[in-house]
Amino acid sequence: MAEQGGLEEAVVADISTSFIDGGIGELIYCGYAIEDLAEYATFEEILFLLFNSRLPNRAEYDGLRSTIAQNAAIPAEVVQMLKSLPKDTAAMAALRTAVSMLSAFDSDGENLTDKEAAKAKAIRLTGQITTICAAWMRIVKGEEPVAPRADLSVAENFVYMISGDEPDATACAALDVYLVLLAEHGMNASTFTTRVVTATGSDMHSAIVAGIGALKGPSHGGANSAAMNMFLEIGELDNVAPWFKKYVKSGQRRIMGIGHRVYKSNDPRAGILRRHAEALADSSGKRKWYEIAVKLAETARADEYFIKRNLYPNVDYYSAIVLYTLDLDIDMFTPLFAMSRIAGWSAHVIAQMGGRLIRPKANYVGPRDRKWTPIDER
Amino acid sequence: MAEQGGLEEAVVADISTSFIDGGIGELIYCGYAIEDLAEYATFEEILFLLFNSRLPNRAEYDGLRSTIAQNAAIPAEVVQMLKSLPKDTAAMAALRTAVSMLSAFDSDGENLTDKEAAKAKAIRLTGQITTICAAWMRIVKGEEPVAPRADLSVAENFVYMISGDEPDATACAALDVYLVLLAEHGMNASTFTTRVVTATGSDMHSAIVAGIGALKGPSHGGANSAAMNMFLEIGELDNVAPWFKKYVKSGQRRIMGIGHRVYKSNDPRAGILRRHAEALADSSGKRKWYEIAVKLAETARADEYFIKRNLYPNVDYYSAIVLYTLDLDIDMFTPLFAMSRIAGWSAHVIAQMGGRLIRPKANYVGPRDRKWTPIDER
Repeated sequence: MAEQGGLEEAVVADISTSFIDGGIGELIYCGYAIEDLAEYATFEEILFLLFNSRLPNRAEYDGLRSTIAQNAAIPAEVVQMLKSLPKDTAAMAALRTAVSMLSAFDSDGENLTDKEAAKAKAIRLTGQITTICAAWMRIVKGEEPVAPRADLSVAENFVYMISGDEPDATACAALDVYLVLLAEHGMNASTFTTRVVTATGSDMHSAIVAGIGALKGPSHGGANSAAMNMFLEIGELDNVAPWFKKYVKSGQRRIMGIGHRVYKSNDPRAGILRRHAEALADSSGKRKWYEIAVKLAETARADEYFIKRNLYPNVDYYSAIVLYTLDLDIDMFTPLFAMSRIAGWSAHVIAQMGGRLIRPKANYVGPRDRKWTPIDER
Repeated sequence: MAEQGGLEEAVVADISTSFIDGGIGELIYCGYAIEDLAEYATFEEILFLLFNSRLPNRAEYDGLRSTIAQNAAIPAEVVQMLKSLPKDTAAMAALRTAVSMLSAFDSDGENLTDKEAAKAKAIRLTGQITTICAAWMRIVKGEEPVAPRADLSVAENFVYMISGDEPDATACAALDVYLVLLAEHGMNASTFTTRVVTATGSDMHSAIVAGIGALKGPSHGGANSAAMNMFLEIGELDNVAPWFKKYVKSGQRRIMGIGHRVYKSNDPRAGILRRHAEALADSSGKRKWYEIAVKLAETARADEYFIKRNLYPNVDYYSAIVLYTLDLDIDMFTPLFAMSRIAGWSAHVIAQMGGRLIRPKANYVGPRDRKWTPIDER
């Protein structure tokens, strides 16, 4: 058997964007504690930080914010493609296709070597992904997409483009915290995917499209919508204990949003999102879901299996509740993750450009020395 | 510095599809020598072999061939999307987008767990990628795509759909050998990409789309078109020596299509393709390009730098000549590689399904313990 199926022990790159100490539940972006960033920073400050390893001054911040917003529109051809998809298309498949298509309309789409051009493309993509997410939410309802506004932040533009109304400040603030928390997370599977693609010399869009495909998996970004579907299946607070009992009895042990490859104690992002979920719970009139999530987490924490394996709620667990209280379709949860993670992905892509081809080994266990037999003798 | 930037020493999986001994230039698929397969097998036999680890009998072979052809049509919406792209869009970007879009129209597009369903999707994708490649070649010339025929093989259908005329047998045979040779190659960068995506629990289309993005890079599948552009730049046989001298003098040492991460002697596929390139050279009236390629390879082989580093022509080097004699646009060379490699990619995807999340480590070298400063104090 292959020794490193998950490559847990292989070190693939030096990075300076984020550091995780899973044993004590620590996460930093470029030296700043995630708790401080969640409290004080906006998503645009995080994007600047990840690209430049320092926080922007006022002029740099305003410049970045307005560049994102001014480049957030998507071509009519991409809107047309989205409209031509069946309405039950997975939102992540729609996003993946739209981002792939955008490269054809990007003036620097096939520039493979210039890091400054790559940075500019990533900044364009940040706004465009926001626009695609909002457009898809409207298209599936049979509504016309709303164009982005040049004066709004990423979070504000998204909330604005969903409804076309002046964006609600509470919703924007909650979404912005979510975007800050999900922006970057070391060598996770989708980020690693973007690096493997980039190491072949391929382009920014190819890398981001591949990252979206990886994030889509239920063992990665897909966990947030899977967690929400689980809460909905439980349905009532009184049903948490019976549901858990039945679930464990059926032999299943993996609860969506609980447990993490790296965190073996609390995921600091989960704690922050839990507090935001609680704050939003009352104002949204959806307190029940927050309470179900908390009770299920407590029930699991009291179970020997979860105690032994250090399985705690991860970022996807409480982000499901936050996103649900923002009235997003469950299918949109993972695209929202992508809307944030484009920041980390593109910072990794730029760092990887010009680097060595990533090609691990395989261990051949198949047959050898077979002799060819003509088809009619088989 | 990270110890394993290219993950050269990490073993990521047990596989039974192919084995490479780079030291002696050996390549086998499921126990069969590539030389035998190039001589006797068709691409459809290879696809069956990679999926089942044995060669098909006549009924199985006919069944697979006809299933591929019967499912090779692409929806009108995908054709419409391709027509809406700027004509100078990179063919690999068009292919990546079209394959991504196909998932929305696939009846099992979001089936993430069933291996039989995954196999059926891969078989559909094999025909559909062929159709997309041929359609794109016609669309860029302003011509209507030609629909696939249910009675043709993959190679025949491609040649047929380019022109709409009865396919030429010599061209089909040469293309079929190319498809056989490129179908599978261990844990190469694009195949590894499809596995990283699949390990998150994501779907077949997400994995293949990511593989296409990785293959697009000039250090991977993009090398075949880069090699042909180099031959065109050289232009005349008499210019090989001066071109090489000038190239080396400019400090560049990396010649497109020469050298390989795994092969440290002859790439067996290169030798087979060289013989086919020679056979096609006269009939196509394009002998010059074959001669330029051979002379450049000999010139490089006599150079100390190339001798020391065991740099030999790889599969992309002579496949450039074969594909050029088939009258394909240079931009289509890498999509043709994808048309073949879908076989290996999907076999790896199916093997990886249900496997462990692939997530290597990163080595944090950035700042620590930074304190937050409000924006107007920066």
